[in-house]
Amino acid sequence: MPGSSSPSGTSPARLVFLGGVGEVGRNMACLELSGRILLIDAGLSFPHAEMPGIDLVLPDFEYVRQNADRLEAVVLTHGHEDHIGALPYLLREFSLPVYGTALTLALLHGKLEEHGVRDRAEFREIVPGREVSAGPFTMRFLRVTHSIPDGVAVAVDTPFGTVLHTGDFKLDQTPLDGRPTDLSALAEEAQRGVHLFLSDSTNAEDAGYIPSERSVGPVLREIIARAPRLVVLACFASHIHRIQQAADAARDANRMVAFLGRSMHQSVDAARRLGYLDVPLENVIPIEELENMDPANVVVISTGSQGEPYSALSLMAAGEHKFVKLHPDDSVILSSSMIPGNEPAIHRVIDGLYRTGADVFHVPTVPVHVSGHAAADELRFVLSLVKPRWFIPVHGERRHLSHHARLARDVGIPAERIIVAEDGDVVEIAEECRLSDRVPAGMTLVDGIGIGDVGEFVLRDRRRLAADGILVVVVAVDAHHGDLVAGPDIVNRGVVDDAAVEVLEEARNLVMLSLKESAAQGVADRSVLEQNIRRTLRKYFWETTKRKPAVVPVIMEV
Amino acid sequence: MPGSSSPSGTSPARLVFLGGVGEVGRNMACLELSGRILLIDAGLSFPHAEMPGIDLVLPDFEYVRQNADRLEAVVLTHGHEDHIGALPYLLREFSLPVYGTALTLALLHGKLEEHGVRDRAEFREIVPGREVSAGPFTMRFLRVTHSIPDGVAVAVDTPFGTVLHTGDFKLDQTPLDGRPTDLSALAEEAQRGVHLFLSDSTNAEDAGYIPSERSVGPVLREIIARAPRLVVLACFASHIHRIQQAADAARDANRMVAFLGRSMHQSVDAARRLGYLDVPLENVIPIEELENMDPANVVVISTGSQGEPYSALSLMAAGEHKFVKLHPDDSVILSSSMIPGNEPAIHRVIDGLYRTGADVFHVPTVPVHVSGHAAADELRFVLSLVKPRWFIPVHGERRHLSHHARLARDVGIPAERIIVAEDGDVVEIAEECRLSDRVPAGMTLVDGIGIGDVGEFVLRDRRRLAADGILVVVVAVDAHHGDLVAGPDIVNRGVVDDAAVEVLEEARNLVMLSLKESAAQGVADRSVLEQNIRRTLRKYFWETTKRKPAVVPVIMEV
Repeated sequence: MPGSSSPSGTSPARLVFLGGVGEVGRNMACLELSGRILLIDAGLSFPHAEMPGIDLVLPDFEYVRQNADRLEAVVLTHGHEDHIGALPYLLREFSLPVYGTALTLALLHGKLEEHGVRDRAEFREIVPGREVSAGPFTMRFLRVTHSIPDGVAVAVDTPFGTVLHTGDFKLDQTPLDGRPTDLSALAEEAQRGVHLFLSDSTNAEDAGYIPSERSVGPVLREIIARAPRLVVLACFASHIHRIQQAADAARDANRMVAFLGRSMHQSVDAARRLGYLDVPLENVIPIEELENMDPANVVVISTGSQGEPYSALSLMAAGEHKFVKLHPDDSVILSSSMIPGNEPAIHRVIDGLYRTGADVFHVPTVPVHVSGHAAADELRFVLSLVKPRWFIPVHGERRHLSHHARLARDVGIPAERIIVAEDGDVVEIAEECRLSDRVPAGMTLVDGIGIGDVGEFVLRDRRRLAADGILVVVVAVDAHHGDLVAGPDIVNRGVVDDAAVEVLEEARNLVMLSLKESAAQGVADRSVLEQNIRRTLRKYFWETTKRKPAVVPVIMEV
Repeated sequence: MPGSSSPSGTSPARLVFLGGVGEVGRNMACLELSGRILLIDAGLSFPHAEMPGIDLVLPDFEYVRQNADRLEAVVLTHGHEDHIGALPYLLREFSLPVYGTALTLALLHGKLEEHGVRDRAEFREIVPGREVSAGPFTMRFLRVTHSIPDGVAVAVDTPFGTVLHTGDFKLDQTPLDGRPTDLSALAEEAQRGVHLFLSDSTNAEDAGYIPSERSVGPVLREIIARAPRLVVLACFASHIHRIQQAADAARDANRMVAFLGRSMHQSVDAARRLGYLDVPLENVIPIEELENMDPANVVVISTGSQGEPYSALSLMAAGEHKFVKLHPDDSVILSSSMIPGNEPAIHRVIDGLYRTGADVFHVPTVPVHVSGHAAADELRFVLSLVKPRWFIPVHGERRHLSHHARLARDVGIPAERIIVAEDGDVVEIAEECRLSDRVPAGMTLVDGIGIGDVGEFVLRDRRRLAADGILVVVVAVDAHHGDLVAGPDIVNRGVVDDAAVEVLEEARNLVMLSLKESAAQGVADRSVLEQNIRRTLRKYFWETTKRKPAVVPVIMEV
């Protein structure tokens, strides 16, 4: 095997999962060889409903921190947030060589500049098909198709054979750029001998094949050709091939294109510079000029397909966008899937769009989108082609991984050679692969500019506050005798309407009574007084409202 | 037209939508004739993520309250919560005749008893095919199939022709009980002349036909027959035909059945009593006996298919159920759809179930469920059969209604005879139907035992608390001179971790500084002092954390 040394007990190969297995997003894995660490991706995820106030979720970097001296480099499989989004945060702590394809590095560049950490990354552009080395890691990159151009799978030699990681992929053999997932390269790796295979599980639950990206083109063309007035198409800013197809359809219908949204402009600019997007400048108008145009001559290509609040599309749905006012006979195309968790927000936007009188086109009713992740038949095909000795499904929640494991058994991989791992798991790579250890892994929450300072305690407080509200009871007592000097004042937030004066008045009375009783019993200890107040109000609010507000007594000694 | 009087300007017919159009659930409409009101359904909905702490959502009864003297009766199309769940609350305010089929009334009976309002409803059992009158309302009921037995559509005569309301339905022509949706009766109504048609839009976005309930049986039979150990099947408690098919499959595999969950027992008991469910007692074991049985000989039929916290299935997924401990080789079937909004909770349960080592079967991967609502082709078929003069899509969010309107145009109903209404809309029924007015309509929130006392203000507080937390700043000042006597104390909930002592200490210092500055400027006015404290801390926390906690100053004068 090229680049391999003989197996060694002292420097085993291993894989450490820091994110992306068992929970979706935050993809990040450490491949370790001869004591050195190669990071594969450094992604973030977005908060779910149980994380109020949180802006972003990073992988826990603790393991990387503990092993900082062993860091060799990071390799990025493609330019999506769930694969590169944590890198700016990682670079605050570590300087690193960063391997990625041209578009991945171009998208990353702007992001790192914004975070002021561009100088901490040494960019090393990779080209599919070319072999590169970083310390003990000999890597080959295999072209894959996905919902962003320039994605790669990565193959790394180990003493036991190749470790092959697909990144995100589908098997599109007729992609728009004529650069399909490289089946020959996969076959070549199979020939060398893939010891351990890690493959994208996102769509493992979906039967069949994902249609080619090219299939979306005619659908967009037809909608745009027939549209009587303005067309707005929303998609991911990084979905360059979708944008290309929308722009082509616009041109076919003699319409100008207006790009809308900050990330849309950034990614369109980067893709154009690299020659990945071909939209002649004479076909583009600034969005400000829309009002001077016949709406039947324009297609707006916009961000906001995930129902993000204050995004261009959300503002249009609410009738509050500065430049785009929707009218009956306008058409809106949501050329995107719904990322799990975003359904309610997206549905709200779609409902709002309909209320403007516009016609709305979205999946599954109209095939205006195809997924970028391989479905079950493709996954089976790749497993059969790669013929790995060991298999670990990656990129997915537990159910996706379990389904992918089932697919692997279907094509004849023995159950005992399939490892379903989760974040924090360490997999020993040797002739036999096995789960061997656990390392710190999980979520680091970003709230505002705080990274990791909001933990489970604060979140639990927030969830409790949201569910039941808070009552802060303030009294001033004489420091010497414990007599009530002022108050009780009750601050009510989220428990009952402030109009419910009699409820709050009764609560005040009960606190006073409780203090008097305590005094009568000679109780002066503050913590006991607080305990009594808490018990009194909890009981009262439970009995009158069946609610359990947080009760926080503040006793000031004056 | 039978039962019709001549059109009269003084007593027009109208429809008032109090719920279920434009927002899903809480189905409730008033049909008005000769000044009298017939309520069609009285359902509730469940809170979405933006309503923390809320238990249930009722339609706003204000319009009913304002017109209480005109109330004639309520007719229930079937026994689901989103059609009958608000009735116990309505009956607290009004005594009413309640029309419903045998199973609907049986399910309602227990619910009304629990609420202590059974005596406020006069039950009038209806039989599909038989005509009944209530005041000016001549009603006929048409059998429909749905995911609960004994559903009906309702036809009411008006001077202009029939108003036909489908309730929830699908066109299953081979239902388990041999009582299909009555196409002849629909044709008969068409013959009489359907002036205004209201039809279920839930699945208007889904192409094709929904398969027959009967198609689920063989799938369940196969899974249960092959299962090596325990089988747990979760479905809605009211889905009697699903339960029947699961019990039949268990018997075919020589397994006993154990029912699990309070509502499962209630609805199984009611259905059995009425002869709607045939599960011989000798095939049933109490769940407590599971531990004494060979798991390969049992099918547990359980609630919890929507991922409800603390439901039997959620506890199993967490390994915390008292009687059902899952093991590798156990099988769990989620024989249900995901109600929009419940996806994250259901996914969490599925992931947990997989982690126990059990095999999990759920749609869309395995066809263990079919919907109870007609899809696009069925809706088109019914529209063609009924040939209404006017059409209003009901039961759905705006996008469903808009899609259903599109289907109606497809089959030749002129666009100007299709009315897309939303909650609160009044539709004048005459030769020409039209939106004519708005009435109070919306949500009444139930939190604990409080009905309607949590409004938008309290909810906004709760959402803000959840997103950013709260700081309560307490100081005691001398009532005469305004000097600081005690404090400031800062109560922090959900803003930063209490471990962030230096942040909170600095906040205290800033408050003290602010008070000193105010004193130096001779400011003693409490509201100005509070304003200064608020501004100081908001600025500090924004600068150090980019968060916007609620800041509540409490100044005690002592």
